[in-house]
Amino acid sequence: MEAYLDNSATTPPCPEAIAAMREALTTVWGNPSSLHWAGLNAERLLAQSRESLAELFGCEPAEVTFTSGGTESNNLAIFGAANALRRRGRRVVTSAVEHSSIAESVKELASRGFEVVYLSVDRGGRVSEQELMQAINAETILVSLMAVNNEVGSLQPVEVIRRVVQYHRAPALIHCDAVQAFGKLPMQPARLGVDLMTVSSHKIHGPKGAGALYVRRGVKLNPLVYGGSQENRLRPGTEGMPAIAGFSAAVRALPNPMAIMDYVSSLRDRLVAGAASMEGVKLNSPPDALPYLTNLSVPGLQSETMLNFLSERGICVSSGSACAKGKKSRVLRAMGLGDADIAGALRISLSRFTTWEEIDAFLYALNEARLTLARK
Amino acid sequence: MEAYLDNSATTPPCPEAIAAMREALTTVWGNPSSLHWAGLNAERLLAQSRESLAELFGCEPAEVTFTSGGTESNNLAIFGAANALRRRGRRVVTSAVEHSSIAESVKELASRGFEVVYLSVDRGGRVSEQELMQAINAETILVSLMAVNNEVGSLQPVEVIRRVVQYHRAPALIHCDAVQAFGKLPMQPARLGVDLMTVSSHKIHGPKGAGALYVRRGVKLNPLVYGGSQENRLRPGTEGMPAIAGFSAAVRALPNPMAIMDYVSSLRDRLVAGAASMEGVKLNSPPDALPYLTNLSVPGLQSETMLNFLSERGICVSSGSACAKGKKSRVLRAMGLGDADIAGALRISLSRFTTWEEIDAFLYALNEARLTLARK
Repeated sequence: MEAYLDNSATTPPCPEAIAAMREALTTVWGNPSSLHWAGLNAERLLAQSRESLAELFGCEPAEVTFTSGGTESNNLAIFGAANALRRRGRRVVTSAVEHSSIAESVKELASRGFEVVYLSVDRGGRVSEQELMQAINAETILVSLMAVNNEVGSLQPVEVIRRVVQYHRAPALIHCDAVQAFGKLPMQPARLGVDLMTVSSHKIHGPKGAGALYVRRGVKLNPLVYGGSQENRLRPGTEGMPAIAGFSAAVRALPNPMAIMDYVSSLRDRLVAGAASMEGVKLNSPPDALPYLTNLSVPGLQSETMLNFLSERGICVSSGSACAKGKKSRVLRAMGLGDADIAGALRISLSRFTTWEEIDAFLYALNEARLTLARK
Repeated sequence: MEAYLDNSATTPPCPEAIAAMREALTTVWGNPSSLHWAGLNAERLLAQSRESLAELFGCEPAEVTFTSGGTESNNLAIFGAANALRRRGRRVVTSAVEHSSIAESVKELASRGFEVVYLSVDRGGRVSEQELMQAINAETILVSLMAVNNEVGSLQPVEVIRRVVQYHRAPALIHCDAVQAFGKLPMQPARLGVDLMTVSSHKIHGPKGAGALYVRRGVKLNPLVYGGSQENRLRPGTEGMPAIAGFSAAVRALPNPMAIMDYVSSLRDRLVAGAASMEGVKLNSPPDALPYLTNLSVPGLQSETMLNFLSERGICVSSGSACAKGKKSRVLRAMGLGDADIAGALRISLSRFTTWEEIDAFLYALNEARLTLARK
């Protein structure tokens, strides 16, 4: 049987998202900036979409900026904040285990004269509050920390940053890459104390090609692109309505994250118990990781060999981030894992639609891979 | 009856685009960067989409970079070229009648120390080759000129720029915003002698949320966003597959532009003849404009008043660029039109699906507007 266990890379769009996109393509296809009926209908759909996001965030609709996805939202947050605050300081604080769209953006900032401080992580993939306290100073203009790591599922102490920033009287904006947490944990920016928060559509059963950035009222960012007055001039260009409509429909279809956590946890427990029973298989995710993400290694086997073996049997998992295609994991390296464990890492990522049968199919095939491939 | 005559703002997606998007949402929804079957299927769809664009451009697939739309493509061209060539010179040459995504980008470049030269246009909205010759010098690093103006339909002499750049031995990259020309004229970048060319999906009956930038092999641009290795690192982030698939299906559905030019010209001729027969109505587009676009004025009436009047009768036209919502036209100003003509300007824009009945419905309603609104 087929088993899709790579939901942190992307998810199949849900029926609600597909139906909303169909509507945006066949009946409400106007340009939201146009002043006639076709435009006004589209503008209304755009406003409704924004309200759906705002409701989940517990924020005002005007605090939601639609983008083309998580990477663009992260770049808009990083460059938008750094360029807006460059006269207030030069220090940017982030972690060693961020997604490539943060890691490469801050690397570019460093090449432009910003001072980037990378927080290390422990064996569980988590930054320490103490190190965070020391890294932030009065010249810090931006702190960017992901809520949930995209390779191992570690939760980061995002909610403590505000206190630390206030303690140091830093002008820093606080950004959270919530792509992997969104829809799986309650993510209300005001409660987390963040100024900027990135979310993506295609990780929550919405279409690829849409994302959003929460921008707290009063926060001024420099745009990445210039043009018309769409999205408050922060993100000009005709809005990508089909994907935005699909995204917001997927948001409305989200269950209360805590109501499904038990189910997903039970899937994860079965997965971990099954894997642990196989000799040589090592768990890389910490025990308190978000249950949607499990990283494990079969030392002695290469990830890519296993991915091919599993894919031929209908089973989709990954070796890590899809956006780091083919590269060795920076995240596992930062967590202190050895070369063999990194070379043999697999990420199994679940969604609320994952079934027991899929977990069992994976475990069966993993065992087969372990026995077959190791013998060669 | 309803008449949608605002096709330069956006177009209804064609059935081929809608079907392709459905496929990308229901069966080929994988992440093209994933190494399993779901990913490989999506990667194949992405490659096919790129080939469809390359075929129309007469270029290699690797020369096609997908973006979220025309505004992003234009920004990528402008900032990408200027930042890549900043050590070779400071001069950027463009026209006074570009789309806001070019106009605002070069304005931002000017604020960063680049020298921006704006070519003036004649009464027909066209830049002069002589002025172009004088504006380009050995320090010119970028020339950006649209192929067809988005408000009046004027054609620009894009094909002469290469000779001028070579004459001055300028390091300049040549960019063409072909958003309004694409699908309506043969637009092969190599024949036009351009290094960079912008096209958009939703102006050719594809979905909103996709566009492309042709980047001639060997041309190096700086990216706008940083992250994964998608789109040759020039445009990281998970590819917006539903919209890209719909875009490429719309491209494949395009007829030979010259085969339908006669039909669209006959629609335009009927429109112009009908409007000219009404007292006081003035034609702002030059006689040799692309027939898809007609700009006219009813002096003494405000555009917005007319748009509302027409929209109530089911008729969609615009006062100018959707991306310049509510603002007075820079383009008509640059063409030397007076305030009354600018304030009363209407843009009527056609597509290959426009019918005689729609033209007649517009003319009937325009006459009604002229007689009714003027009396008030």
